[in-house]
Amino acid sequence: MTLIEEILGGKSGESVVRRVDLVYAHDGTMPLIIEAFNKVFATVRARAYIFFDHVYPAPTVKIANLQKEIRDFAKRHRIPVIEGQGISHQLVVEMGLTENSKIVVGADSHTPTLGALGVFAVGMGATDVAVILGLGKTWFRIPESVGVILEGNPSRYVMATDVILHLLSLLKDYDMNYRAVEFFNVPFSLDERLTLTNFVVEANAKTGIIGEEYTGDGYVKELEIELNSLNPLVAKPHNPANVVPVEEVEGTKIDQVFIGSCTNGRFEQISKAAEILEGEKVAVRTIVGPASMNVYKRMIEEGVARKLIEAGAVILPPGCGPCLGRHMGVVGDGEIVLSTTNRNFRGRMGSPNAQIYLSNPITAAVSALYGEITNPEGAI
Amino acid sequence: MTLIEEILGGKSGESVVRRVDLVYAHDGTMPLIIEAFNKVFATVRARAYIFFDHVYPAPTVKIANLQKEIRDFAKRHRIPVIEGQGISHQLVVEMGLTENSKIVVGADSHTPTLGALGVFAVGMGATDVAVILGLGKTWFRIPESVGVILEGNPSRYVMATDVILHLLSLLKDYDMNYRAVEFFNVPFSLDERLTLTNFVVEANAKTGIIGEEYTGDGYVKELEIELNSLNPLVAKPHNPANVVPVEEVEGTKIDQVFIGSCTNGRFEQISKAAEILEGEKVAVRTIVGPASMNVYKRMIEEGVARKLIEAGAVILPPGCGPCLGRHMGVVGDGEIVLSTTNRNFRGRMGSPNAQIYLSNPITAAVSALYGEITNPEGAI
Repeated sequence: MTLIEEILGGKSGESVVRRVDLVYAHDGTMPLIIEAFNKVFATVRARAYIFFDHVYPAPTVKIANLQKEIRDFAKRHRIPVIEGQGISHQLVVEMGLTENSKIVVGADSHTPTLGALGVFAVGMGATDVAVILGLGKTWFRIPESVGVILEGNPSRYVMATDVILHLLSLLKDYDMNYRAVEFFNVPFSLDERLTLTNFVVEANAKTGIIGEEYTGDGYVKELEIELNSLNPLVAKPHNPANVVPVEEVEGTKIDQVFIGSCTNGRFEQISKAAEILEGEKVAVRTIVGPASMNVYKRMIEEGVARKLIEAGAVILPPGCGPCLGRHMGVVGDGEIVLSTTNRNFRGRMGSPNAQIYLSNPITAAVSALYGEITNPEGAI
Repeated sequence: MTLIEEILGGKSGESVVRRVDLVYAHDGTMPLIIEAFNKVFATVRARAYIFFDHVYPAPTVKIANLQKEIRDFAKRHRIPVIEGQGISHQLVVEMGLTENSKIVVGADSHTPTLGALGVFAVGMGATDVAVILGLGKTWFRIPESVGVILEGNPSRYVMATDVILHLLSLLKDYDMNYRAVEFFNVPFSLDERLTLTNFVVEANAKTGIIGEEYTGDGYVKELEIELNSLNPLVAKPHNPANVVPVEEVEGTKIDQVFIGSCTNGRFEQISKAAEILEGEKVAVRTIVGPASMNVYKRMIEEGVARKLIEAGAVILPPGCGPCLGRHMGVVGDGEIVLSTTNRNFRGRMGSPNAQIYLSNPITAAVSALYGEITNPEGAI
């Protein structure tokens, strides 16, 4: 039995109706959810939270008005609204909202992040989330799972991002549609574990989850990843699975580096980048986006913020930042970005003529110093 | 002879051509300057600086592309571009760019801020600034000056903002067109002196300047302000000269507080606000915008940033923030804002249906705690 079969109480392929222990949404998805909810329901019957993380504080009157509408809806239905305190997925972790929860639905595609805590967490569209708000439950088809067993320990330049980029390249030609990834024997801290599950949706997986012990029973596929032999990887434009060793793109000039987001905006990741930038000056504009106010506070307390500022980086208020091309750090025509986020689709961070490369935060920081994509091995 | 007559070397009313010692612009005004410059000139013959402070990091592709154009122009003409390090006027002060300068022109209406350093500093439109870039000089009509002599010392709730708001109400019915304000006997620190000159343009003055000793010769008008008897003031919508004692608007519910900008985003001002917020929780969304990266760094080093974050405020990257309604903190229809900035015109911070009240940072911080405009006297 896979971890997900155990949680959902059935066999993969079966459709089941289950109570949702926690449902959440953000300022980007709430307007459509409200519209769908109001057509059918009058009362919220789910444990719900709303986070303002995508485009906050509001950059336009239109967005300010949408946020007002969300606040009004939330007040009417007594749903807590957490504004500008960080990215939804990260705050759900920090606030302990998944305690005693097994099934979590978020109105955001990166909700699987929470699988790092051993819960079944999936992203759904506005209509589905509106139904959950109204009924407190929904139906799931229980996904088949791919078991991924990590072996050994990574070198100092290799981070969770490289593991998941490597996995993306392994699964490139494998049909992951409505299948999940279950990770075992993960040697990472929570900060980095969250990166693994955050990123699985880019393999087209339904979700990801991290378990303790691999039983090997009922998995549709099994993969072992040898961490000792992994090197820093980069995803080239315009697909996260377009993965190459960093050496292959070394020397590519960049205009902007972004270190942060729900993928790599936690303390461990930002502080690793800051260690590299300490005492140096960035050669290109470098934007740092902490995943939460707690991360930000710790950055301040432990001298990480100071290192970044002195190196010339700009620290954003906690939130999604430029990852989705709608706020603070949007890129222009022909610009080239190195980003620690999870998506490099055409136009994702702004102009459709921009090029986005993805890497781990160490590679991103080293590259910020040189103004071009740089292999951290040998450079630091 | 007034201070400004001495600097410009002539009598008020005369037109003179003078070399401009320093000219600067920002991301908001540069695109029009480039357009005007390119029509007539090929070579930059002025000491020029460009600051990205208005809408940075870019929130749209259009703005990202405009910023690219500015960078290209600056590179071609070897003009330094300082991106995301703070508000132009503040950085000119911190970088010591007015040393050995007497005449400064900025492509921003709040350039008179620099008058606190004893220079003649005026804001000009794009075409005029383009001409200065091309020629290194421009013509001025020497303004008449109003002499403002401060007496005594203010109470702990009264700040430079109250002095200038009081002055605005005194000059409400006086024709300030093409006249300047010269301040004497100013008991404030540099942080607060900059607030005085920053704000004079809202009295419709050409500029402001702070001098040492009042000679009284040649002034078109003379005003004395008794600081001991001043109380905290508020400017009601939709005019900065619409000034009333804070008691008169006490209890007005607010949706947002903004503490920052070139008016009140320096260390002294933000730290005074933080002292009030320390250990408390804000009742409304509270946005803090440091005027520069140096201010921000000091906020981090001296525990001010921690106090603000723990109280629930959001700290923006240094820059103009929501003051001009184009970035991070734009207000929606019907919202009411208390702001430490210098303009409360209809639509200034976003929706034309929003209402903006202006106050000093102490009043703003106390009001953030109560969710309504609150007189700091008695409340703290």
